[in-house]
Amino acid sequence: RAKFKILQRETLLKYVIGVDIGGTNLKVGAVSATGELLFRTEVPSSVKEGKDATLKKILNTIEEVRHRIKGKRLAGIGMGVPGIIDMETGTIIQSPNLNGWAGFKIKDTLADKLAWPIYIENDANAFTLGEGWVGAASGIKNFCCLTLGTGVGGGIVLDGNMWRGVNGTAGEAGHITVEPDGVPCGCGAKGCLERYVSATGLVRMAREGKDDKMAGPLLNKCGGIDGISAMTIASLAREGDPFCMELFRRLARYLGIGMADIVNLLNIEMIVIGGGLSNASDLFLGLARDEMLKRSFKVPGHHVTVVSSKLGDDGGIIGAAFIALTGGIR
Amino acid sequence: RAKFKILQRETLLKYVIGVDIGGTNLKVGAVSATGELLFRTEVPSSVKEGKDATLKKILNTIEEVRHRIKGKRLAGIGMGVPGIIDMETGTIIQSPNLNGWAGFKIKDTLADKLAWPIYIENDANAFTLGEGWVGAASGIKNFCCLTLGTGVGGGIVLDGNMWRGVNGTAGEAGHITVEPDGVPCGCGAKGCLERYVSATGLVRMAREGKDDKMAGPLLNKCGGIDGISAMTIASLAREGDPFCMELFRRLARYLGIGMADIVNLLNIEMIVIGGGLSNASDLFLGLARDEMLKRSFKVPGHHVTVVSSKLGDDGGIIGAAFIALTGGIR
Repeated sequence: RAKFKILQRETLLKYVIGVDIGGTNLKVGAVSATGELLFRTEVPSSVKEGKDATLKKILNTIEEVRHRIKGKRLAGIGMGVPGIIDMETGTIIQSPNLNGWAGFKIKDTLADKLAWPIYIENDANAFTLGEGWVGAASGIKNFCCLTLGTGVGGGIVLDGNMWRGVNGTAGEAGHITVEPDGVPCGCGAKGCLERYVSATGLVRMAREGKDDKMAGPLLNKCGGIDGISAMTIASLAREGDPFCMELFRRLARYLGIGMADIVNLLNIEMIVIGGGLSNASDLFLGLARDEMLKRSFKVPGHHVTVVSSKLGDDGGIIGAAFIALTGGIR
Repeated sequence: RAKFKILQRETLLKYVIGVDIGGTNLKVGAVSATGELLFRTEVPSSVKEGKDATLKKILNTIEEVRHRIKGKRLAGIGMGVPGIIDMETGTIIQSPNLNGWAGFKIKDTLADKLAWPIYIENDANAFTLGEGWVGAASGIKNFCCLTLGTGVGGGIVLDGNMWRGVNGTAGEAGHITVEPDGVPCGCGAKGCLERYVSATGLVRMAREGKDDKMAGPLLNKCGGIDGISAMTIASLAREGDPFCMELFRRLARYLGIGMADIVNLLNIEMIVIGGGLSNASDLFLGLARDEMLKRSFKVPGHHVTVVSSKLGDDGGIIGAAFIALTGGIR
């Protein structure tokens, strides 16, 4: 019993840092061993200024977070990176959102400057692990997360373990084809889910509809086509604007198609929808679920719960921290 | 060493029976403990005459096979059934191809009449286990099988285990949406992969093109629209008939889309194409692979091998036998 108490105290005294590297923002937080976010900060990731500028920001922000935490020992640092990651070597293989980072051995570079164990993981996988740890999928053994942000990421947990595939690239649900002759995608394909259910996709669909006479209110509010944002579309849709509501209906339909594909293939218990767009999930999640049910087999369709992310904007940080805490194993 | 020899002899003296219940044919075979097909037979499954007629055929055919095998002990009987199966209770939940079988406790009914352990599994899963045991995916730990027949079935093996999902319905790759507003499917959805890459789908596409002036040779050879068969389309395509070649190009494109979805989601090592249509794989498999590569991420796309089934028509029997041999665990 004495030994157990020491172990428990040891756990309570430990914390980890989670880093969520986005194309726009860099989020860094300190997370306790029980999944509590102790402190978090967010700065622009300055991707356009080049890799070195971003790396410097990462190091500075980690340092800032570290100085905020008193009386606990830092046990490791986990990082979620958008793109395809070689987890063993900590190398970024491919990253559409981090220009010039392909081939970069981010783990080795950071290990030279930081004294703690470092873990690198795909950002959507990190988010998925966070939701599974202390989020919407806590206690769920078979689920999938979809992050609807600038792009669309995905992570799959099967039988309680992250399914990473043979090269660590599994879970790219954003690149399920939903329109065989659809909009070209950054990945080289056409009609990927990502092109329709991301913030970028929503804005694109709005712009394509600019000549629709119903588009007037949106164009007015945004001061023209260049000012259109997902946030404004959502706020108008909530006010009942038919053009903006229709845009969300289209988004929901494609999301439902993608979810039905996943459900028919994997027969999982839960789909968690995260990412910036999930703040507008009231506008599309019910519709997407209906579309999914129309297109999936009865048994797997009716056994899957579709929910919004619980950790929201902090999911990436908490998931990355989880990786540092567990050594990447869920 | 003596004990090992006894065990080895025991194994060599054992055999299992595999039953592959199709909408058209019933295939039954005796399989050795090392995966050798000792004897096989095939009769019409007589589904239209009702469940009892088919059941009687199953029992008679098992009896026939059993009498052919001398000097070996029957250890169990495995059955592949088209549809969604509750493996624990051996009940057929849903079956588009076996009319009136939904809710049927096939395992209990057969157990009353047969003295050997009985195992029931989805037919595509059984096929997948066969290919993984002694077929094209022997030794491969992460793969997917697609059976292109009257419909399209699928089975997924991850980390060396059959992935059955939380309700045993996983692997329904035939119901990935490839055309969001496409042809209605028996499952209730629209534009499912099955509608385009099955024998039925190929014939439907041919019929839809009957007014194309290029369709002449096919219509002539088949004696009109009602005589069109997948086999004739394949034989004309091999002779260079442009209309029939185009039908296979369309099939290949949709198959490539479905395979890219699977590869992006699961990052597996191999896709095995089986089912009756795989006899014509020379006409579409290369094209399908090209389409898949266009639509999948580089790393998972280039790490997946796409091959034809090795066991062909016997895959269902051998896979069902494998389930009887191992108790359903791979």
